[in-house]
Amino acid sequence: MATKYVYYFGGGKAEGNKDMKDLLGGKGAGLCEMTNLNIPVPPGFTISTEACNAYFEAGLTYPEGMWDQVLENMKKTEAEMGKKFGDPDDPLLVSVRSGAKFSMPGMMETVLNLGLNEKSLQGLINKSGDERFGWDAYRRFITMYGSICKEIDRMKFEEEIDKVKEAKGVKNDIDLDAGDMQNLTTKFKEIYKAETGEDFPEDPYEQLKGSINAVFGSWFGHKASTYRKKEGIPDNLGTAVNVCTMVFGNMGDTSGTGVAFTRDPATGENYFYGEMLINAQGEDVVAGIRTPLKVDEMAKAFPDAYKELMEVQDNLSKHYRDMLDLEFTVQDHKLWMLQTRVGKRTAPAALKIAIDLVHEGQIDKKTAVSRVEPAQLDQLLHPMIDPNYLKTCKPLAKGLPASPGAAVGKAVFTSEEAEEWAEKGEKVILIRLETSPEDVGGMDAAEGILTSRGGMTSHAAVVARGWGKPCVAGCEALNVDYKNKKASVGDTVINEGDWLTISGNNGYVIIGQAPVQVPELTGDFGEFMEWVEEFRTMSVRANADSPADAKVAREFGAEGIGLCRTEHMFFEPDRIKAVREMILADDVEGRKAALAKIAPMQKGDFKGLFEVMDGLPVTIRYLDPPLHEFLPHEDKQIEDLAKDLGVPAEKLKNKVSQLHEFNPMLGHRGCRLAITYPEVCEMQTRAIIEAACELKKEGKDVIPEIMIPLVATVKEFVPLKELCIKTADTVMEEMGVKVDYKVGTMIELPRAAITADQIAEEAEFFSFGTNDLTQTAFGLSRDDAGRFLPFYVEQKVLPEDPFVSIDIDGVGELMKIAIEKGKKVRSDIKLGICGEHGGEPASVKFCYDAGLSYVSCSPYRVPIARLAAAHAALNAGPSATK
Amino acid sequence: MATKYVYYFGGGKAEGNKDMKDLLGGKGAGLCEMTNLNIPVPPGFTISTEACNAYFEAGLTYPEGMWDQVLENMKKTEAEMGKKFGDPDDPLLVSVRSGAKFSMPGMMETVLNLGLNEKSLQGLINKSGDERFGWDAYRRFITMYGSICKEIDRMKFEEEIDKVKEAKGVKNDIDLDAGDMQNLTTKFKEIYKAETGEDFPEDPYEQLKGSINAVFGSWFGHKASTYRKKEGIPDNLGTAVNVCTMVFGNMGDTSGTGVAFTRDPATGENYFYGEMLINAQGEDVVAGIRTPLKVDEMAKAFPDAYKELMEVQDNLSKHYRDMLDLEFTVQDHKLWMLQTRVGKRTAPAALKIAIDLVHEGQIDKKTAVSRVEPAQLDQLLHPMIDPNYLKTCKPLAKGLPASPGAAVGKAVFTSEEAEEWAEKGEKVILIRLETSPEDVGGMDAAEGILTSRGGMTSHAAVVARGWGKPCVAGCEALNVDYKNKKASVGDTVINEGDWLTISGNNGYVIIGQAPVQVPELTGDFGEFMEWVEEFRTMSVRANADSPADAKVAREFGAEGIGLCRTEHMFFEPDRIKAVREMILADDVEGRKAALAKIAPMQKGDFKGLFEVMDGLPVTIRYLDPPLHEFLPHEDKQIEDLAKDLGVPAEKLKNKVSQLHEFNPMLGHRGCRLAITYPEVCEMQTRAIIEAACELKKEGKDVIPEIMIPLVATVKEFVPLKELCIKTADTVMEEMGVKVDYKVGTMIELPRAAITADQIAEEAEFFSFGTNDLTQTAFGLSRDDAGRFLPFYVEQKVLPEDPFVSIDIDGVGELMKIAIEKGKKVRSDIKLGICGEHGGEPASVKFCYDAGLSYVSCSPYRVPIARLAAAHAALNAGPSATK
Repeated sequence: MATKYVYYFGGGKAEGNKDMKDLLGGKGAGLCEMTNLNIPVPPGFTISTEACNAYFEAGLTYPEGMWDQVLENMKKTEAEMGKKFGDPDDPLLVSVRSGAKFSMPGMMETVLNLGLNEKSLQGLINKSGDERFGWDAYRRFITMYGSICKEIDRMKFEEEIDKVKEAKGVKNDIDLDAGDMQNLTTKFKEIYKAETGEDFPEDPYEQLKGSINAVFGSWFGHKASTYRKKEGIPDNLGTAVNVCTMVFGNMGDTSGTGVAFTRDPATGENYFYGEMLINAQGEDVVAGIRTPLKVDEMAKAFPDAYKELMEVQDNLSKHYRDMLDLEFTVQDHKLWMLQTRVGKRTAPAALKIAIDLVHEGQIDKKTAVSRVEPAQLDQLLHPMIDPNYLKTCKPLAKGLPASPGAAVGKAVFTSEEAEEWAEKGEKVILIRLETSPEDVGGMDAAEGILTSRGGMTSHAAVVARGWGKPCVAGCEALNVDYKNKKASVGDTVINEGDWLTISGNNGYVIIGQAPVQVPELTGDFGEFMEWVEEFRTMSVRANADSPADAKVAREFGAEGIGLCRTEHMFFEPDRIKAVREMILADDVEGRKAALAKIAPMQKGDFKGLFEVMDGLPVTIRYLDPPLHEFLPHEDKQIEDLAKDLGVPAEKLKNKVSQLHEFNPMLGHRGCRLAITYPEVCEMQTRAIIEAACELKKEGKDVIPEIMIPLVATVKEFVPLKELCIKTADTVMEEMGVKVDYKVGTMIELPRAAITADQIAEEAEFFSFGTNDLTQTAFGLSRDDAGRFLPFYVEQKVLPEDPFVSIDIDGVGELMKIAIEKGKKVRSDIKLGICGEHGGEPASVKFCYDAGLSYVSCSPYRVPIARLAAAHAALNAGPSATK
Repeated sequence: MATKYVYYFGGGKAEGNKDMKDLLGGKGAGLCEMTNLNIPVPPGFTISTEACNAYFEAGLTYPEGMWDQVLENMKKTEAEMGKKFGDPDDPLLVSVRSGAKFSMPGMMETVLNLGLNEKSLQGLINKSGDERFGWDAYRRFITMYGSICKEIDRMKFEEEIDKVKEAKGVKNDIDLDAGDMQNLTTKFKEIYKAETGEDFPEDPYEQLKGSINAVFGSWFGHKASTYRKKEGIPDNLGTAVNVCTMVFGNMGDTSGTGVAFTRDPATGENYFYGEMLINAQGEDVVAGIRTPLKVDEMAKAFPDAYKELMEVQDNLSKHYRDMLDLEFTVQDHKLWMLQTRVGKRTAPAALKIAIDLVHEGQIDKKTAVSRVEPAQLDQLLHPMIDPNYLKTCKPLAKGLPASPGAAVGKAVFTSEEAEEWAEKGEKVILIRLETSPEDVGGMDAAEGILTSRGGMTSHAAVVARGWGKPCVAGCEALNVDYKNKKASVGDTVINEGDWLTISGNNGYVIIGQAPVQVPELTGDFGEFMEWVEEFRTMSVRANADSPADAKVAREFGAEGIGLCRTEHMFFEPDRIKAVREMILADDVEGRKAALAKIAPMQKGDFKGLFEVMDGLPVTIRYLDPPLHEFLPHEDKQIEDLAKDLGVPAEKLKNKVSQLHEFNPMLGHRGCRLAITYPEVCEMQTRAIIEAACELKKEGKDVIPEIMIPLVATVKEFVPLKELCIKTADTVMEEMGVKVDYKVGTMIELPRAAITADQIAEEAEFFSFGTNDLTQTAFGLSRDDAGRFLPFYVEQKVLPEDPFVSIDIDGVGELMKIAIEKGKKVRSDIKLGICGEHGGEPASVKFCYDAGLSYVSCSPYRVPIARLAAAHAALNAGPSATK
């Protein structure tokens, strides 16, 4: 038996259904499904993706039997419609559309009105009784066929129309009459001949063949090939071809065409949301010149078609059990459905729809959980601009959505002012060219941060995301003028004190105070997260350095702290002085004296963390950054500090220059500090263990995990572990309490990953520091990559910013090597991740698949990680879920 | 049968021989071998390393049969000597010495005169007729036994001697008489009792047991254990114990003790080289207070013993077929040999001895080649201070031997002065605190470089080694005073213009003009290198950026260029201006205009290189460093340059600040430049291919290999390869010539190594850039590591500076992964290394074992790499050699 290549739909019965997207493409599968549901779909057929693949395999020749099947199905369509293809009296006209499994830019567009020629045109005119309509349809067909199937520059046709309009002194196509259209048709045919060397085909079957070939051909067109290569879509999917009876929305005021959503795609509310243009074809809707009818107007203008549309959408929604995106045409009051697919939606809509559908009994919790994308959740955790307001608002400019959430405040241009204004109770937005570590005070004080430079991984973006504070970065249209304390976009000026709204969800910068919705973590969100817990298996912790952060994290569902960066505590104003004294000390004794001042404060911090995390593990990392980060670098600041500390400015300058590093990222930091200054490591261990012992005496359940950073070789780990244990033993002896604690390491250098077996002999846990691991694996500084990384991502040299989503081939492979080697030596080794990636859904999935025990991320990303972990478990199949 | 634990030597026959070092230790094997050769060795026996291991396994208990065997062998020794152990009339005395396979600091030292007690002492006195000698021997024995076997602080004994000398008002031990010695003996026994709670043992066998236990015990002593751990010597080797009849070099003027070399260890000349002290024991020779006799004086003083010694050394040399290090004692004109081992030697001596032995027919070429250490060769390639002068000279200070060779010149303290003086024909030594890229002019002009700061991988060291210029770095004793143009070490001042000699072979800094030998690459060296070629299989190339360097490299035997760094050409004074114009250009057109100026010069460079390397491959790397390296950074310099270029200083400052990077090593460099500025890559390709085509027309054999640096993903490689091929095709079309060329990449990032299979799909060769691979694998900046890396190496956190010798566990493992993955995809892929490691012997061996096709190193290291490659092939067994 010959292979079946063509699938018919019409007369209430189709040869395909919604589950056959691979074979029929998304559009074809939807048309079949609707037909089977007895929904009015213009009859026609789909040529399968298999045919497309066979066509290429055979060297641009139709596979055996395909053309015969097309002819057969044309007959069926003719019979169904009672019309004949190319008939001079009442011709059947068809549309030809591509339709792959995934919608793909650069694929062939639609060819409408196919089947028209000199003779059948007369039939169309006679039947419609509208000469202008007929000639308009013909010239449109020639344009589409010529430009799409024969690659004639569309401008060549457009220019002719412009000439005619100019000669007549009119502005719009609508002002051209039947004669003009007829003349244009003649002109268009001449253009066609000049460009192709052939007459415009009169034979409708030749036209059909030409269109099918063009759809097939577009699959390997330059644009589609490039797109697939970039997106990683395999070449052998192929595209289907949909041939469909033409229906006309442009046959006068009894016709029209429209699009609709079965629920509000912005809010998720359960009402029918649609628009329609009277006397128009699809391309007119896209052009957006005329104001469309709203649903209530539609009901008045086309009562029967509207009633039927309501029934159709109700059927379809219940059938698909989801919110749908519909296309339809009304021809002479008769409704025809042209497309159905699951509709795109905003984050709040996704959540609301998923929850409503469960409550309505349409889907189960598992389906609801899997339908909300973890990345969408991010927006729900932060204040957002009212979605209804967003539908119509015009932003002043658009930057990168660097850290989610909406913020409203008065513009300020320096960090100092941000702090001063905030102290006076003013809400401010801090506007900077870009931020640096000196700006953190102002960033902290501001409601949101707006920068004109820097990318998604700039200082502003990273700090803001860590704090869960809204940030729009790299808003290039914004000219920032520090001197005059203002910024401008074109002619619009933002002065200091002007109200401004920014949205880190979409990068919008809006003049004035936009209405903002505050997220509720209870209600829908809370209910949804409860469902998530039913499917999640991998643990989720938070990166938190203070009791306040830890509290937020725990509220968001963190099951421990995966990374406490002790250096953040060192920057606190009340202790930075002691830290600097330590750095300036000439010997061990001097350092110890300074450390003694910090020790009680550190202990206090740790007690706070342990208390909040009662019963959950808390991973504390030894001091990590190079010491020069704690000193100022500008002459003026150095002099001020010298005065403050009572040391000669010269001495301080010398120290700063002595500590200067060419590549601080690869410098004297991490465990290298602890090895050269063991007294720091000793003080920190003492603070941790003393805090733990004191709380244990109070009956708290304290689970400290001490983490040694930047280990490249086990020989760095061993002496520090020994010092840690020795110190802990001493403290526990002194306090008369024993606490269980672990000593482990970060795996954040390629050498550590490669020698993880040696390290696992000694370390009780690994925590993958994927920020540094990415930097070193790529030889790429996150601080400097801004100059070319965006270009790399844009050019798809890198599929994604590797600091955002784990580079699976490289960094991921290093992690896998480390996991395998680590487990071989210590089968029960605890494995986690504490890089920025720990809260990114694709990376969370990778971590799950790689077998990590937990991911750790900033508190505000904990729910995202939880949902991503649930998705990963659901994807891995039922045996992997709880 | 009981295990044999004790091996006898004496009476012309021994139970062991020189090949039994594992079992008998180095010393024991040598004593056996000499005995078998009928050389006079004081009879005795060796307790094997097996016994030592069994002793520890059984919990500090002798293995069964060992003590019985000791007793038996004591009997044999008594019989041989005709004396009895502990005999009150004519006692047999013995020495007990440890002797492991490798000599090891911290292992037990020698116990002499064992067997003395109150009774046997009288026998010794009677027999020797010298009361003072007897008591002296006894108090020495108590001191050695007490301090070494019972760990009594030696100072406690020394203090008593000092008291007696003070009381008598004398200065030297020699001024104490028999009575003093007797009194001291009494005192020493009191000390022994006070410290140990026991009487000093009278029973000789108890003394022997005590000494054997102490030798065994010292194997697991803290110092020896730590040393073994650091050096990677396994714990289960164990130590042997040598028990040997005492002979006395301190029995008056007819006795003496000495050390000798069978050839001159400094020059290799073939004459007997030895020294002897009359009336002395071994420890006196070490103390170095008295002036020893030279060989000719020895011949006069002890004609018979001398004659015998000549026969012995002749026999032994011919037997061992090598230069030997001997210890001997003459007791009453009778010669006794106490030790023989292969002697340590300087580099020139190693070469000369190896060559002479082949010429004398004693060894074959293979043996000669394997006897010269590649690292030693380094010294032979540079001028060196006359070895005979070195034997006696006193250096002013000692720094790190950062780059080999001796240099003589007048002291200057700035780079500018170095250049000015050199232009006037003066030879200068440039003295700096440390050097920076601004100093390269002066470094180039100077004969040698001396710095007071910085380690083996400091700027000065690395640049100097690259140029083959002598350098002593990190000479901390040197106080450099730029302001007054002088330097000082203690009270000695070096003023500008003072003559100075430095030796990068040993770090010596010498006031004045020391005699210097210039190396000859012909003669012995040439002959030796010819032999090397008979065994070498792996190719050796050079890193060279100029025709001059390439010429040196070819003379040194380089088989191609493994790395031409094109940026070095960019720094040339005649083109840096055009380079800066390119950097400052506002758009592609501006950049192209500037590049057009550089293009002909680049072509000229490449033609020069290709001509010198006619018939050999030349690997050229695209521009690698970040662009800010080509711009000045100081305000003053920026202003000067702005004037020079005719651009506003502000613009230049902006550019400099715009190009500033926090971590330039991980910044916008390598192939990232070529991707963002493809016109640079295009210009360089054009220059390479035009140069190649022109020379091919002249009949030259040109083999260009184009290398893309810092590739992290194959997606960076592909577009550049495509651009390269497109450009090359265009050029070849224009010129009407075809040249074969390859396009490959550096593997210098961990991610490249991990994804080498993907890269090998596209790249025709890999060249491992182990400098950057080490930096990124360790997360360690070579420029900054100076602050802690020396400490790391000292503390053995790292066994060696990983920038000097490849870190096999980490970086080596990454290389192996890359090699395996690369070969899997492209079995004939060409694999090389062009990091600094390419000239380091242990790394060369690693590269050979890992299967690389070639190593590439700086021209002056080519012979070293050649010899190291020959060694690697010889070690791999005969099937691997040519």
